[in-house]
Amino acid sequence: MNIFVTLDRNYLNPLKVMLGSLFLNNADEDFDVYLAAEDIDETDLNGLDTLCFGGHVSYHFIEVKDEWFADAPTMRYYSRAMYYRLLAAQMLPQSLDRALYLDPDILVIGKIRPLYDIEFGDALYAAAMHKGLTSISGQISKIRLPDYEADDYYNSGVLMMNLQQIRKEVYPSDIFDYVKKHHQVLILPDQDVLNSLYGTRILSLDDAVWNYDARKYDTYRLASQGEADMDWVAKNTVFLHFCGKKKPWQSSYRGRFSALYKHYQALILRRCWDMC
Amino acid sequence: MNIFVTLDRNYLNPLKVMLGSLFLNNADEDFDVYLAAEDIDETDLNGLDTLCFGGHVSYHFIEVKDEWFADAPTMRYYSRAMYYRLLAAQMLPQSLDRALYLDPDILVIGKIRPLYDIEFGDALYAAAMHKGLTSISGQISKIRLPDYEADDYYNSGVLMMNLQQIRKEVYPSDIFDYVKKHHQVLILPDQDVLNSLYGTRILSLDDAVWNYDARKYDTYRLASQGEADMDWVAKNTVFLHFCGKKKPWQSSYRGRFSALYKHYQALILRRCWDMC
Repeated sequence: MNIFVTLDRNYLNPLKVMLGSLFLNNADEDFDVYLAAEDIDETDLNGLDTLCFGGHVSYHFIEVKDEWFADAPTMRYYSRAMYYRLLAAQMLPQSLDRALYLDPDILVIGKIRPLYDIEFGDALYAAAMHKGLTSISGQISKIRLPDYEADDYYNSGVLMMNLQQIRKEVYPSDIFDYVKKHHQVLILPDQDVLNSLYGTRILSLDDAVWNYDARKYDTYRLASQGEADMDWVAKNTVFLHFCGKKKPWQSSYRGRFSALYKHYQALILRRCWDMC
Repeated sequence: MNIFVTLDRNYLNPLKVMLGSLFLNNADEDFDVYLAAEDIDETDLNGLDTLCFGGHVSYHFIEVKDEWFADAPTMRYYSRAMYYRLLAAQMLPQSLDRALYLDPDILVIGKIRPLYDIEFGDALYAAAMHKGLTSISGQISKIRLPDYEADDYYNSGVLMMNLQQIRKEVYPSDIFDYVKKHHQVLILPDQDVLNSLYGTRILSLDDAVWNYDARKYDTYRLASQGEADMDWVAKNTVFLHFCGKKKPWQSSYRGRFSALYKHYQALILRRCWDMC
C-alpha cells in the first residue's frame, strides 16, 4: 500500500504516532511510505524505520524540486507544502496507480484495506465530508468560493488518490492559476482548491468510518439515534481525525479520545526509543 | 515471564483483551501463561494462542485437582475459584520461582519488567493499595477483619508472587481455617484473606503505576497536584484496573478510559478473528 505524507518539523512526533497506529492496526499489510517535507531532512527521520510493528514498511524520501513550484504564487502565510497533496501525482513515482494521503493529526484505529481497494471508476479522489458541520460549512463555501460546484465540502485530511486519472486531469497550472485568482478568499488553501476545482469528481466516503471528527462524538451518536456509540466507533471507525486547534498531543488536551491518543503516543514513542 | 490467570466463562473475552494488551505492550518479552479455570475447558480457549503480537507466548492449562480443595469450606456464594490466587504456589509448577497474577478486568498499557524483576527480600507478595479509598477502607477493614494487622488494605487484582517464599509460609490449611472461622464477615474473600493473614508480608507498590483504579482519574490528578494528568498516565501507568461494578466491555460504560479499552477490545478480538 502506498501512503503519502507531508510534514514539517513541528509535526514529526504526531506523524510517528499516525504511522505507528497505521502499522499496528494493519500488521498484515506491506507499506511504502512516501515522505515529502519542506524544512526537514532525512536525519530527522531516524526512528521512523523502527515503526513497523510486524508489517513490512519501506520509506521513500521525496526530494522536492524547485521547478515544480516555478509557477506557484507565493503567499504570505502559506508555504509550498500546502500544494503537496494537490501535486501528489507529480511528486510520487509515475509507476504508482493509487496512494492514500493522510494528515499527521490522525490516529488509525482500524483496517484500511476496504478504502485502499475502492472502485474509483473515473473519479479522481475518495474523501469524506464532516457531518454536523456539513450544511453550515457547505453554505459558507458556496458563497465564499467562486467556482464551487459540488454539493458538499470535503475534508482533505484523508484523501484516497486515483493517481492514473489525476495525471490525466489535474494540472499544476490549473491549481496555481486558481490560487492566484482567489488567494484573498482562501482560508484552507489546499482544501478549498480541492473542493472548488475537483469537488464534483470526488467519491464520497462515510466520515464516521473514514474521517471521524474526534470533537464530534455526541453529534455522531445523536445523528445515528444512538447507534454510533463508543462500541460502534471501536469496531467501525478507521481514521480518527483530531481536527481543529486543540491537538491531543498537547498536555492541556481534554477530549473523549484523549486516553486513547496519549496511550498510542506513549506506546509508539517508547517503541521507537527502545529500538534506536 | 510467568503469568497466572484464573477465569470463568463470563470473563473469557476480557481475559483475551487483558492478555492481548499485555503482549502488545511487552512485545519484546517471552511469556508462559498459566490458566486455571473452574467451568471452562481447553476448547473454549481457541484464539488465545493467536494473541502473541510478536512476543513469544506458551499457554499452560492447569488441571484443577479436587484433592487441593478437600478441606476447603463450601460457601453459598463463592466458588473454589476464589482460592486460586491464594493457592497459586500449589497450583503452579514447583519449578517456578515467581509469577504475576492478573485480574481479567485489567488493561495493560506499559512495560511490566520492572515489577516482574522486583527484589522481594523475604516478602511473599508485591501489591498496591488504592489511594483515595485507602484511609476509609483501611479503617473499615481494621474493624471488620479480626486478625487484620497491616496498615493498609491491598488490592489483589495485581499480585506479584514470590513463589519460593510462599511455598515455605503459606499453607492451604491456614487459608481454609481462616475462611471457616470468619466466613460471616468476609466480603471479598480472597482479598480479605490475603490482607488478614499476609498483609504485613506484602511489598507496597505505587498504585498509580501498578494498579490504577480507572474510576479515579480525578482523585489521582488532584492528589498529585495535577502532575498525574493523562500524559503522565500514558507514560507511567502499567496496569489500568477497571474496578467496581461498571465494566468497560459493557455498552453502557462511560468512563475516561472508555475509548482506550474499547479500542483494545476491538483490535484484539479482530486479530483473534483474523487468525482463527
